[in-house]
Amino acid sequence: MADRKTALVISAHAADFVWRCAGAIALHQEKGWDVTIACLSYGERGESAKLWKQEGMTLEKVKADRRKEAEEAAKVLGAHDIRFFDAGDYPLELDRAAKDELVDLMRKVQPAFMMSHSLYDPYNTDHMYTTKVAMECRMIAQAWGHNPGEKVLGAPQLYLFEPHQTEQMGWKPDVFLDITPVWEKKRAAIECMRGQEHLWSFYTNLAVNRANHFRRNSGGQAGGRDAKYAEGFQSVYPRTVDEL
Amino acid sequence: MADRKTALVISAHAADFVWRCAGAIALHQEKGWDVTIACLSYGERGESAKLWKQEGMTLEKVKADRRKEAEEAAKVLGAHDIRFFDAGDYPLELDRAAKDELVDLMRKVQPAFMMSHSLYDPYNTDHMYTTKVAMECRMIAQAWGHNPGEKVLGAPQLYLFEPHQTEQMGWKPDVFLDITPVWEKKRAAIECMRGQEHLWSFYTNLAVNRANHFRRNSGGQAGGRDAKYAEGFQSVYPRTVDEL
Amino acid sequence: MADRKTALVISAHAADFVWRCAGAIALHQEKGWDVTIACLSYGERGESAKLWKQEGMTLEKVKADRRKEAEEAAKVLGAHDIRFFDAGDYPLELDRAAKDELVDLMRKVQPAFMMSHSLYDPYNTDHMYTTKVAMECRMIAQAWGHNPGEKVLGAPQLYLFEPHQTEQMGWKPDVFLDITPVWEKKRAAIECMRGQEHLWSFYTNLAVNRANHFRRNSGGQAGGRDAKYAEGFQSVYPRTVDEL
Amino acid sequence: MADRKTALVISAHAADFVWRCAGAIALHQEKGWDVTIACLSYGERGESAKLWKQEGMTLEKVKADRRKEAEEAAKVLGAHDIRFFDAGDYPLELDRAAKDELVDLMRKVQPAFMMSHSLYDPYNTDHMYTTKVAMECRMIAQAWGHNPGEKVLGAPQLYLFEPHQTEQMGWKPDVFLDITPVWEKKRAAIECMRGQEHLWSFYTNLAVNRANHFRRNSGGQAGGRDAKYAEGFQSVYPRTVDEL
Amino acid sequence: MADRKTALVISAHAADFVWRCAGAIALHQEKGWDVTIACLSYGERGESAKLWKQEGMTLEKVKADRRKEAEEAAKVLGAHDIRFFDAGDYPLELDRAAKDELVDLMRKVQPAFMMSHSLYDPYNTDHMYTTKVAMECRMIAQAWGHNPGEKVLGAPQLYLFEPHQTEQMGWKPDVFLDITPVWEKKRAAIECMRGQEHLWSFYTNLAVNRANHFRRNSGGQAGGRDAKYAEGFQSVYPRTVDEL
Amino acid sequence: MADRKTALVISAHAADFVWRCAGAIALHQEKGWDVTIACLSYGERGESAKLWKQEGMTLEKVKADRRKEAEEAAKVLGAHDIRFFDAGDYPLELDRAAKDELVDLMRKVQPAFMMSHSLYDPYNTDHMYTTKVAMECRMIAQAWGHNPGEKVLGAPQLYLFEPHQTEQMGWKPDVFLDITPVWEKKRAAIECMRGQEHLWSFYTNLAVNRANHFRRNSGGQAGGRDAKYAEGFQSVYPRTVDEL
Repeated sequence: MADRKTALVISAHAADFVWRCAGAIALHQEKGWDVTIACLSYGERGESAKLWKQEGMTLEKVKADRRKEAEEAAKVLGAHDIRFFDAGDYPLELDRAAKDELVDLMRKVQPAFMMSHSLYDPYNTDHMYTTKVAMECRMIAQAWGHNPGEKVLGAPQLYLFEPHQTEQMGWKPDVFLDITPVWEKKRAAIECMRGQEHLWSFYTNLAVNRANHFRRNSGGQAGGRDAKYAEGFQSVYPRTVDEL
Repeated sequence: MADRKTALVISAHAADFVWRCAGAIALHQEKGWDVTIACLSYGERGESAKLWKQEGMTLEKVKADRRKEAEEAAKVLGAHDIRFFDAGDYPLELDRAAKDELVDLMRKVQPAFMMSHSLYDPYNTDHMYTTKVAMECRMIAQAWGHNPGEKVLGAPQLYLFEPHQTEQMGWKPDVFLDITPVWEKKRAAIECMRGQEHLWSFYTNLAVNRANHFRRNSGGQAGGRDAKYAEGFQSVYPRTVDEL
Repeated sequence: MADRKTALVISAHAADFVWRCAGAIALHQEKGWDVTIACLSYGERGESAKLWKQEGMTLEKVKADRRKEAEEAAKVLGAHDIRFFDAGDYPLELDRAAKDELVDLMRKVQPAFMMSHSLYDPYNTDHMYTTKVAMECRMIAQAWGHNPGEKVLGAPQLYLFEPHQTEQMGWKPDVFLDITPVWEKKRAAIECMRGQEHLWSFYTNLAVNRANHFRRNSGGQAGGRDAKYAEGFQSVYPRTVDEL
Repeated sequence: MADRKTALVISAHAADFVWRCAGAIALHQEKGWDVTIACLSYGERGESAKLWKQEGMTLEKVKADRRKEAEEAAKVLGAHDIRFFDAGDYPLELDRAAKDELVDLMRKVQPAFMMSHSLYDPYNTDHMYTTKVAMECRMIAQAWGHNPGEKVLGAPQLYLFEPHQTEQMGWKPDVFLDITPVWEKKRAAIECMRGQEHLWSFYTNLAVNRANHFRRNSGGQAGGRDAKYAEGFQSVYPRTVDEL
Repeated sequence: MADRKTALVISAHAADFVWRCAGAIALHQEKGWDVTIACLSYGERGESAKLWKQEGMTLEKVKADRRKEAEEAAKVLGAHDIRFFDAGDYPLELDRAAKDELVDLMRKVQPAFMMSHSLYDPYNTDHMYTTKVAMECRMIAQAWGHNPGEKVLGAPQLYLFEPHQTEQMGWKPDVFLDITPVWEKKRAAIECMRGQEHLWSFYTNLAVNRANHFRRNSGGQAGGRDAKYAEGFQSVYPRTVDEL
Repeated sequence: MADRKTALVISAHAADFVWRCAGAIALHQEKGWDVTIACLSYGERGESAKLWKQEGMTLEKVKADRRKEAEEAAKVLGAHDIRFFDAGDYPLELDRAAKDELVDLMRKVQPAFMMSHSLYDPYNTDHMYTTKVAMECRMIAQAWGHNPGEKVLGAPQLYLFEPHQTEQMGWKPDVFLDITPVWEKKRAAIECMRGQEHLWSFYTNLAVNRANHFRRNSGGQAGGRDAKYAEGFQSVYPRTVDEL
């Protein structure tokens, strides 16, 4: 078990990992990886409009509700672990202690790859802030002089998962992942997000259309893989390979 | 043998494939691929200064000499095949017949990947022209209505190999290939280029420094692969994968 | 009738105008505009795979079939006019006479806006070629010395309609058009494209998801318009206004 | 009066709104809008060289003087309101309370559009900081869970007004506004800025030249509007329309 | 005289060199350089609207008139030489012979720097075509195998002079030249362009405002040079220096 | 001595100035400039892996060791002065007092140019943070109202020196400096960095290859300067000149 491959997903708000990379989580778990999810906030202020429209709602209730949804989704996906940083949203801000906690998690997980948001998002500054923090913490986790004696982090890829309006964010996918085998799990996780039902069909349509892009890029009408659902990701760092 | 994987390198001038992807050629040949090289010109006018400084030199002599060097280099690398289009250089211009010949070659080779130059090159317009032609011919080779009945091309990746001044060309590598096992072959191919001896150490230094980048991106001081020589490439199209 | 507003759509292949701006065509016709469609080719070689898989197919049959589909689609949309340049595809190439014909059409139509493809498309060089030609012809149509005495073209906006893989083409929409009132017409036009049935659901999903983007940008959960279907466009030139 | 349209201008220093969008302010006021100006600082340290060259100058005197100039300019333009945040300049830094104040103002004004600085400015980091804060506060103001019960903000456009050296800032206008009807007001507001007289002719020349761009883009020599003065703006978000 | 430094200006239409770099021409002539101007066309179709509005105008008359204006302007600036390629405009297209003529000129002049248009211009495809040709011919002129025996071209800088709407062309100046000493000559050259009087004040305003940018970048309010008129240029290639 | 020209190098970690601009430092000193180096941190946590692998290492020992290396290197280069801010690394963070100290240094040195890191660095957020701080402090140092009475800063160029993986950082050199006359000093300074011996050959190879770029851009095979070692820099601001 010690040598299972691992991955770490860093999600600004509780639901981001569901819309944006639930397929990758479920698929890698099925392939024997252990995927850990870090939710930096619950999205309690900014992504819970439906809850706030209810009578007598409080911040604590919203957070509890969002946490429950996220835990259910993680379970449906078979995720190895889910951690909540409860750092607040709109705006999300991590102090040094919270950043150190994320560094510790990176070192503990020793991920082969990490995931986070697009580099730019003029609609949601929490998203780009999260990726900035992920880069900073990756650097610190690699430093031999940070908590000397601990096993330092290697050089995991950082995949940027799909934002809501890709073109406005300057996000460009360079890899498509076939998530057909785990689609039912992703859809089930999506349906855990009861507070954002208006997005269920959006992200289903998207997975179907990304599969078209998968087929187009894997051979087109001359032998392209017949993927039904896919997710796209943008890589921050170059790959290193033995064969192209 | 029918099912050996194949690749196609499209080189504007006779020596480009040596400096820029000789390692990839030799390595894939060693791994059981068949790599075909298409030299669109001999670089006879623009990349043969040393020859032209000799007394009594003629265009035909330069071309013959350059062809011989390229054939020797291809042989040293164990390349499956090398084709010469003799389309002229400075400027390189392919008419419709020459483009059709390149389309035919793509369909015949059915490459899993192709290689060509950077998208932009203000020093050498032949280079960017070559990539433009490669894209156009890739599109035509995929068309069911071009020479109907032939096997159409799938969706091969197009890797852009390293130009001479990367930053001026806006070239950004997203994959590094460890060519340590075949370095001696690449160096031998480089030494076939007797007319451009001033570039031998440049491309040797480069391979060594790219190996540093390989190590940095494969784990750094915490387990990075100890590559000694590497080549970098920029992908034009997204990858399609089953696992990240 | 002389003062109806007009628009001109320039489509590389016969079906492009359907997938990419059928909603805009139908909507503007309903609002009293006259929209002319220029199909530079039938997409006979490159976008008719289904036909070419039939026994005994010929280029002329494919072209006739594709023309019929395009005419039906234009009729369904209520388009004012549709012109076929029959310039060939894969590759599409317009000689000077064909370009002059396009210049003449621009001057005759005197469009308030024009539409064409994305500026970059590594999958389909016909697409980016079309936009390059559109820009060149727009410039010529504005020249007082080209066929002196004719009414010159003003400064129509050039909208770039949505390509198949937006992020790979570097296409970024800056305007979303609500096409809910004419969706049934667009869907009917899509269904005229019998040879490309595999794309029907793709472009339906897309219209639905673009409506989500429309809502998000027109007010979000605080009063956003409840659009059900939308199309996105990228503007080449700045707008000139009296009020923001 | 409740249904007058509104706009909010966010100006890093006291004079920015004058040089960069005084025409837009005066024009929209004349058209029945209410425009509110938020000056985050007085520009007391960094944009008051002329005052600091006087004997015995103090920070408070500079601030008072700059405030007076800005109030006069706002009055000349007929601006609905002007607010001073007095957050300091060179560097400008808003703490959480100041940001909350800006969020409150956005919710109170409920602007149809907002204005701020370019995304990048290597000469003046206060400018790009201001836009970053504007985006963050826009996001917070949209959150149902921020001060629940208040009316949340919709999705106002954010226009970036013209910086001093446009090309160095990567600023690209996508809309030109004809300010001819209110030019005299803009010039009068400019003349209120007694401390920066060296910029009066610069911004007058600029308005005249932008009108040339307005004419070029509204029809050129074939019917372009004869604007005499104009301002340019870059949009951050896509527009949503019913007709192109 | 053999060792005077030389420069070569490549102008798409007859008047471009006046608006965009007349100051640089006059200034370098005064400093002892020899500047040669190559006008690829007269701008007879596309930039002579005023002439075409006259009764009985013919192409030949327009060309003669434009040539005369350009020659006068060159004379006023003291330019060493002006050459007319008469390759036609809207569109401008150079065949191989015309390109060879430009290569010959580059070799004959042996310029220390060359000048041409912006890399991109969606309003005027002749402009970007000219720069593309300039790059191609620079490459050919450097080739030892092109007309062997001639003195090959070195590596002259290619400066892109200022287009009409800088931001739309993606043009970014990296060097400002103080043209105060020769402003009167530039203004006189501008006034030679009798057919485009509507642009005189535009380019005067521009020179004044560019001087403001010159001052800002040469020291600002702490010692900036008091330039009154300036021109901006974008460099294509890196500089090589002995001291920064 | 008062009128010696001066420069200021701002280095995130103790060794950055050695790898990236030691040649520029030594060369300008030899030419009579005074170059001051500001090391914001010692790189004690993140760039001292070799030291941390020793038994019983402490943060203070690492810092002392790194300081000693940097001082030796500065001495070898003949640098006028070296200052240590000891602001900590991985992450590097300057509070207001530390920034004010940097502003004071800029005013004291009154540099003709400054140097710092690339604008973007996804591997090392300390690097891009340093350049952000350099820009902010440059702005403050120019403000007449910051510590009124002091001599304000002019408008020094900010050169971005070469990062470790140029293409990943989006760094593009626009000037190459011939450092052949001082190469031995640079190599000696490099060898002072005993803790990072794995980088010695990397930066030697790089200097050799940059000299190839120098030659290519200063004339190529037709008179290019025969530089043996070079460094490249990217300019943030435009130059202002009297002659091109």
